[in-house]
Amino acid sequence: MTAFPEVGKIEYEGPESRNPLAFRWYNPDEVVEGKTMKEHFRFSVVYWHTFRGTGSDPFGPGTAVRPWDDGTESVENAVNRVKVAFEFIEKLGAPYYAFHDRDVAPEGANLKETYKNFDTVVDALEAEQQRTGIKLLWGTANMFSNPRFMHGAATSCNADAFAYAACSVKKALEVTKRLGGESYVFWGGREGYQNLLNTDMKRELDHLGKFFHLAVDYAKEIGFDGQFLIEPKPKEPTKHQYDFDSAHCLAFLKSYDLDKHFKMNLETNHATLAGHTMQHELEYCGTNGILGSIDANTGDLLLGWDTDQFPTNYYLTTECMLSILKFGGLGTGGVNFDAKVRRESFEPLDLFYAHIGGMDAFAKGLKIAAAIRADGKLDQFVKERYASWDSGVGAEIEADKHDFKTLEAYMLEKGDVSPNSSGRQELLEHIFNMYM
Amino acid sequence: MTAFPEVGKIEYEGPESRNPLAFRWYNPDEVVEGKTMKEHFRFSVVYWHTFRGTGSDPFGPGTAVRPWDDGTESVENAVNRVKVAFEFIEKLGAPYYAFHDRDVAPEGANLKETYKNFDTVVDALEAEQQRTGIKLLWGTANMFSNPRFMHGAATSCNADAFAYAACSVKKALEVTKRLGGESYVFWGGREGYQNLLNTDMKRELDHLGKFFHLAVDYAKEIGFDGQFLIEPKPKEPTKHQYDFDSAHCLAFLKSYDLDKHFKMNLETNHATLAGHTMQHELEYCGTNGILGSIDANTGDLLLGWDTDQFPTNYYLTTECMLSILKFGGLGTGGVNFDAKVRRESFEPLDLFYAHIGGMDAFAKGLKIAAAIRADGKLDQFVKERYASWDSGVGAEIEADKHDFKTLEAYMLEKGDVSPNSSGRQELLEHIFNMYM
Amino acid sequence: MTAFPEVGKIEYEGPESRNPLAFRWYNPDEVVEGKTMKEHFRFSVVYWHTFRGTGSDPFGPGTAVRPWDDGTESVENAVNRVKVAFEFIEKLGAPYYAFHDRDVAPEGANLKETYKNFDTVVDALEAEQQRTGIKLLWGTANMFSNPRFMHGAATSCNADAFAYAACSVKKALEVTKRLGGESYVFWGGREGYQNLLNTDMKRELDHLGKFFHLAVDYAKEIGFDGQFLIEPKPKEPTKHQYDFDSAHCLAFLKSYDLDKHFKMNLETNHATLAGHTMQHELEYCGTNGILGSIDANTGDLLLGWDTDQFPTNYYLTTECMLSILKFGGLGTGGVNFDAKVRRESFEPLDLFYAHIGGMDAFAKGLKIAAAIRADGKLDQFVKERYASWDSGVGAEIEADKHDFKTLEAYMLEKGDVSPNSSGRQELLEHIFNMYM
Amino acid sequence: MTAFPEVGKIEYEGPESRNPLAFRWYNPDEVVEGKTMKEHFRFSVVYWHTFRGTGSDPFGPGTAVRPWDDGTESVENAVNRVKVAFEFIEKLGAPYYAFHDRDVAPEGANLKETYKNFDTVVDALEAEQQRTGIKLLWGTANMFSNPRFMHGAATSCNADAFAYAACSVKKALEVTKRLGGESYVFWGGREGYQNLLNTDMKRELDHLGKFFHLAVDYAKEIGFDGQFLIEPKPKEPTKHQYDFDSAHCLAFLKSYDLDKHFKMNLETNHATLAGHTMQHELEYCGTNGILGSIDANTGDLLLGWDTDQFPTNYYLTTECMLSILKFGGLGTGGVNFDAKVRRESFEPLDLFYAHIGGMDAFAKGLKIAAAIRADGKLDQFVKERYASWDSGVGAEIEADKHDFKTLEAYMLEKGDVSPNSSGRQELLEHIFNMYM
Ligand SMILES: [Co+2]
Ligand SMILES: [Co+2]
Ligand SMILES: [Co+2]
Ligand SMILES: [Co+2]
Ligand SMILES: [Co+2]
Ligand SMILES: [Co+2]
Ligand SMILES: [Co+2]
Ligand SMILES: [Co+2]
Repeated sequence: MTAFPEVGKIEYEGPESRNPLAFRWYNPDEVVEGKTMKEHFRFSVVYWHTFRGTGSDPFGPGTAVRPWDDGTESVENAVNRVKVAFEFIEKLGAPYYAFHDRDVAPEGANLKETYKNFDTVVDALEAEQQRTGIKLLWGTANMFSNPRFMHGAATSCNADAFAYAACSVKKALEVTKRLGGESYVFWGGREGYQNLLNTDMKRELDHLGKFFHLAVDYAKEIGFDGQFLIEPKPKEPTKHQYDFDSAHCLAFLKSYDLDKHFKMNLETNHATLAGHTMQHELEYCGTNGILGSIDANTGDLLLGWDTDQFPTNYYLTTECMLSILKFGGLGTGGVNFDAKVRRESFEPLDLFYAHIGGMDAFAKGLKIAAAIRADGKLDQFVKERYASWDSGVGAEIEADKHDFKTLEAYMLEKGDVSPNSSGRQELLEHIFNMYM
Repeated sequence: MTAFPEVGKIEYEGPESRNPLAFRWYNPDEVVEGKTMKEHFRFSVVYWHTFRGTGSDPFGPGTAVRPWDDGTESVENAVNRVKVAFEFIEKLGAPYYAFHDRDVAPEGANLKETYKNFDTVVDALEAEQQRTGIKLLWGTANMFSNPRFMHGAATSCNADAFAYAACSVKKALEVTKRLGGESYVFWGGREGYQNLLNTDMKRELDHLGKFFHLAVDYAKEIGFDGQFLIEPKPKEPTKHQYDFDSAHCLAFLKSYDLDKHFKMNLETNHATLAGHTMQHELEYCGTNGILGSIDANTGDLLLGWDTDQFPTNYYLTTECMLSILKFGGLGTGGVNFDAKVRRESFEPLDLFYAHIGGMDAFAKGLKIAAAIRADGKLDQFVKERYASWDSGVGAEIEADKHDFKTLEAYMLEKGDVSPNSSGRQELLEHIFNMYM
Repeated sequence: MTAFPEVGKIEYEGPESRNPLAFRWYNPDEVVEGKTMKEHFRFSVVYWHTFRGTGSDPFGPGTAVRPWDDGTESVENAVNRVKVAFEFIEKLGAPYYAFHDRDVAPEGANLKETYKNFDTVVDALEAEQQRTGIKLLWGTANMFSNPRFMHGAATSCNADAFAYAACSVKKALEVTKRLGGESYVFWGGREGYQNLLNTDMKRELDHLGKFFHLAVDYAKEIGFDGQFLIEPKPKEPTKHQYDFDSAHCLAFLKSYDLDKHFKMNLETNHATLAGHTMQHELEYCGTNGILGSIDANTGDLLLGWDTDQFPTNYYLTTECMLSILKFGGLGTGGVNFDAKVRRESFEPLDLFYAHIGGMDAFAKGLKIAAAIRADGKLDQFVKERYASWDSGVGAEIEADKHDFKTLEAYMLEKGDVSPNSSGRQELLEHIFNMYM
Repeated sequence: MTAFPEVGKIEYEGPESRNPLAFRWYNPDEVVEGKTMKEHFRFSVVYWHTFRGTGSDPFGPGTAVRPWDDGTESVENAVNRVKVAFEFIEKLGAPYYAFHDRDVAPEGANLKETYKNFDTVVDALEAEQQRTGIKLLWGTANMFSNPRFMHGAATSCNADAFAYAACSVKKALEVTKRLGGESYVFWGGREGYQNLLNTDMKRELDHLGKFFHLAVDYAKEIGFDGQFLIEPKPKEPTKHQYDFDSAHCLAFLKSYDLDKHFKMNLETNHATLAGHTMQHELEYCGTNGILGSIDANTGDLLLGWDTDQFPTNYYLTTECMLSILKFGGLGTGGVNFDAKVRRESFEPLDLFYAHIGGMDAFAKGLKIAAAIRADGKLDQFVKERYASWDSGVGAEIEADKHDFKTLEAYMLEKGDVSPNSSGRQELLEHIFNMYM
């Protein structure tokens, strides 16, 4: 039995290929800057969009044609879906996948049954991981869909929601450990507010801080040493999500003494909804030592919601790879396609086209980024631009040899600053194009 | 000699008045929640927009008719302008004003002359403060207009810009102290980047951290004990300002061990440009103990730049006052009209209309806020909404009596969460209107 | 049997009332500017949000508790729901309602059965209309939810979708006529594109023009003389909706010689998503003679999707009523609450709170607007501002007595323009507040 | 005397060149789809940004170093600047330029002197055009900078502003004709409103319609047969510009019976500020027969103001060229760089880098677009997607053989629509990348 009979293993055919079911740039074993492409990207397929997405939107129900799925919330259907997922991932050649608890297994009538359902499906996942060698990039728990979480999970006004969320994370941590997951992600789906009139922000943030500490403690207790990641998003579904962007997360983590335990899982579309480029968020996190992993997708900057489109823009992928290379790679993170096919792209084949397009775009971006770095012109420009800090008063300031009084003495003597240099933005953008 | 011969002292005439040169709501000595309105608001007039604004925009030169101003950058003109400013503020009845160094005094041919010009004007300011009793809310230095700061001040790639900025802040601190200024504000005008291709973010942030430490040290040295404030703004003039919003500032301050020394000066239009309501920023800062002062204005949410309009919306002013009352007032901060008349409102009289409208809107907002608080219905709703945290498992969690395992035991037993309650947003908004 | 046992008829209790299940401002028989409030507003309840909304969003399923609804798509359930709807509308005291075909009746296995289902429910609607006196403001057809319309209806690349849509509109027109509906609305749910790469815009627009002509022809044929309305919306669900805003609609209608047959149904949240205030859209349509009806709601300007919140802001409702009064009312249109309770406001009672809050906000807005108009100060200001057009060269230009050469002669003689007057925006906003 | 001694004629050196002062893609005589690149693009340099831009912004004065400019508003300086401009344009190899009256010549003490100043500079422009063969793409009049136009020009509440504007356009039309300008552009700089409280929209729009008719009449009278163009922009400097986007312009032109006389001059940054992609605006105008010319630049979609950056993104330029080729080219229009160097790019050399980068990006975009068209895969996909309209019921509908009743008969018989096909957005974006 195969779910995708018309598709075989996706192969690398090189740039001249016009076969949309082959890679033109992603060549897993090709070495760039000392690592294979496979190692650079650690591509991951997401269970939620790719195997649970229906194409529904607020204006209409699902459209997706998924012949293997009987449309029920049965455990049997869930177990069967696991095989389809691994067939897809294996044919695609992605080494990783990622899931929420609720993506893979349905809720039961109570928590106990929910655990049981989950365990049954995890058996199947484990078997398929062993069969294929595909690994779990990270696990996570869905604490935003079920109505019990309508007011939030850890930040709910209902203390029971906190307690239930604790169970969700406890179990998801155990499963993630069992399946060899390399990280664990928190996306605060409804951790935020719809309206300040009914919200006690301080109490909610305190609860969130406490929740994260309990998670850290439990991970330690069970010996899960994967990286904890927070995925920032500014809004949607709530009006304001507490994890608005990476700076909000960092401020929160430091306020609650959690910053040693967490890094960021950055998503392009979340970055832009927060008013930042993805490159900004990457640089910000790299600079602050909290770059963990990325959710590779793109948004439409003229739309105000999270479209989670597959990334195909070479400028975007090049900028991502420039930052990722600069900060030494993603460690135990990866390039995770938190992206969904459009409602109108309803055939199974579209899932392949979409992922191949995204993987190729990243591979091309890596090659461009590596060429830029090998050439060194852009780096050299930056280095020279800050040359005034490498000697004289600049170096002295960096070496803590100045205070306001000595600087005043220096400038009173000099009268005004040495001339500035042109920022050369237009030239740099033009040079960037030379590598495209 | 008078600059505003047609305007006398603006008086309180009460809600029935239709005189646009009188207050309908702002009654400085009226007591609300135990303090006079004057004490609540500590209204402040800004020198930059109100006495230096010309009405120029990127598409045309200034339009403002200011008969007292000879249009030159002479010290004499600057000194003369001081008298006009104090006549205006005195007639308006605002107890405070605020300025940048460059608003009040022109640059000279070199730093030394610039200092001298500044001192000359400060003599005049001091004399007018003494004559009128009007006080300085806060001082600040303009480190963004002069081309020497094109690449930033503390974050410039040109180390001399850092050194010059040090002199600017040193001098401005001294002047602020001399004039009795109660706070000192940093708005990072060009502390950010236009383009990541030419930017070393890490180095720039390190320099900014160092700069703030030097400022803190110098303030201590001279015994200036006013509050340091940062004014967040996300973009404009740069593509990305490091002080994007209060969360970015907080993360930065904590990263550089500066958080004990700084609070925020929040501006409505900056909040909305960052994707937040002003109320959000107030609640966030109040919650994090960093609410310092506010720049009272409003933006146009359908426009993408900082319009700095005068605030007249009662919902906005009520929300501001609710938060300010909740967090115990603004301390040494105040309600500072960082707002400018439109380019088409070019007459001196428009300055009066604008400020009176803004002050009245805040006074009305205070009265509504106080009524809401006196009634207690909204507060009561919030308190009850979180009741599950006041006893049972909620109280136990808050008291650190639970971990993931005990919570799991609790929920396995219970099966699922106790029912949620309606968030009642529509009811709350309807009730809010009952106080309008 | 009652669906809302805890709620009786909502009564007017006056401004001092604190009863959230009473009107404080909406007094149906109170006369304002010669018409009763009931006549001014012609309030309408929408079937889709209020009786079919579940509270689902892209991140979770429905939350709404609707004890009367068995959750099935049966005709029986649909007929039963009709009674609940009319109980609600009657208790609320709204004189109108509005629906899409699919809101009231489920699809059948084929078009014929779908017709039959619809007819069965229409019988029930007709009976309830007769029993209660509640009338149909307008009818419309849902041509966006069913996957058959995934690529659009009239603008689909699938010609059958056009044919099916023709049936939908034909039937909906017949039903609207039968039920005495006073208008018929087109909202082009998926009439737009997701991507230009797969789109033939010209062909799609031609099809849309043809479709509207066929609808106009058929209405004539069956003697339906209600007003045709288009509801503009810029985006969502598609990336670009052809009916982006009222100007786009007007350009389209004129291009296809349809402008005599259509007016606009304006929605606040659609206006703001398009970058306009609701007041702008009202003035634009009034000015162009195409103001038909309004969907009364509000959005959150910091969010990028259609939140369809209930309107409670007095500034918004006052601006709406100022424009509506200025252009002589809404004719056969009305104030239709295309608004939904938040996902967290899941109880039946929230539906009452929400509508009462909205109706009261509009009633208060009407009273403020009427006071502004009675006073005449703002109108007088505008009239005087354009005084130069009432005599001299202005009047001559308006009377077509000038061309470029005579104007040049005039201005060469004069040298430059007579002085401008201040636009007084700040004063006007301050005066506006005097009526709040 | 040379203004740019360090730069010679910019030459085409081919893709392998790394010389930033050479073209890598723009090869003026290279033939693509039967026309030379020179003919395709008709590149134009703008006088305002390139020769009058100072780098000032709302937060600081100019930074630009322009050694040839004495900084005065003298006619002598203006005449001298003409030589510099033509040296630049000639070295760059652009065949066209464009200007506002006020860019090239200063105002005098009255209209008469203003005319005289203009004539003097036009003599110099004419001489340089003859010397170099560089031509005028289009002329226009600045009716937004001078305070006399603060409330608008044709739409001002001050009738004299209309009269003065008439003179400006009259003169600019005469000059454009004299200099052989191929089009004439209207950008409605302040034709809009800041606030509806003081605005009579109907009267303003009527005046604007009248103004355009007078312009059309005068052009006819003097035999100027260049194309009239309107440049849409949604906001900035006003809150709402009447020429919001091309659809607003089209609706207006049709309402005032002007649509036969005008086409659009589209600008990328104006498109995106209005919520559209540039490609959308191009397709919309092409579809409606009003595509005239383009202002080639780009904005930053995360910023809310008109940044007018030089375009360097290959996706953008490819999309532009796909649409331009599809609609048969730009006729008497061209690719006009309405773009400015950043405030920090203050050296004359930056002007070269910026233009070369932009021209190369467009040349590369043309080559990609031509390859896509030559291959035909994307066009073929679109054609097949609409195949249902080429026969059967679709063809019959297009041939006007159906009404609602016949379509109902067809669908009642059929029961439901024939299956839809996948929209394949992800595949198409992936295929698009194959040509990059
Ligand atoms: Co994600
Ligand atoms: Co997302
Ligand atoms: Co401010
Ligand atoms: Co501001
Ligand atoms: Co609507
Ligand atoms: Co809506
Ligand atoms: Co332009
Ligand atoms: Co522009």
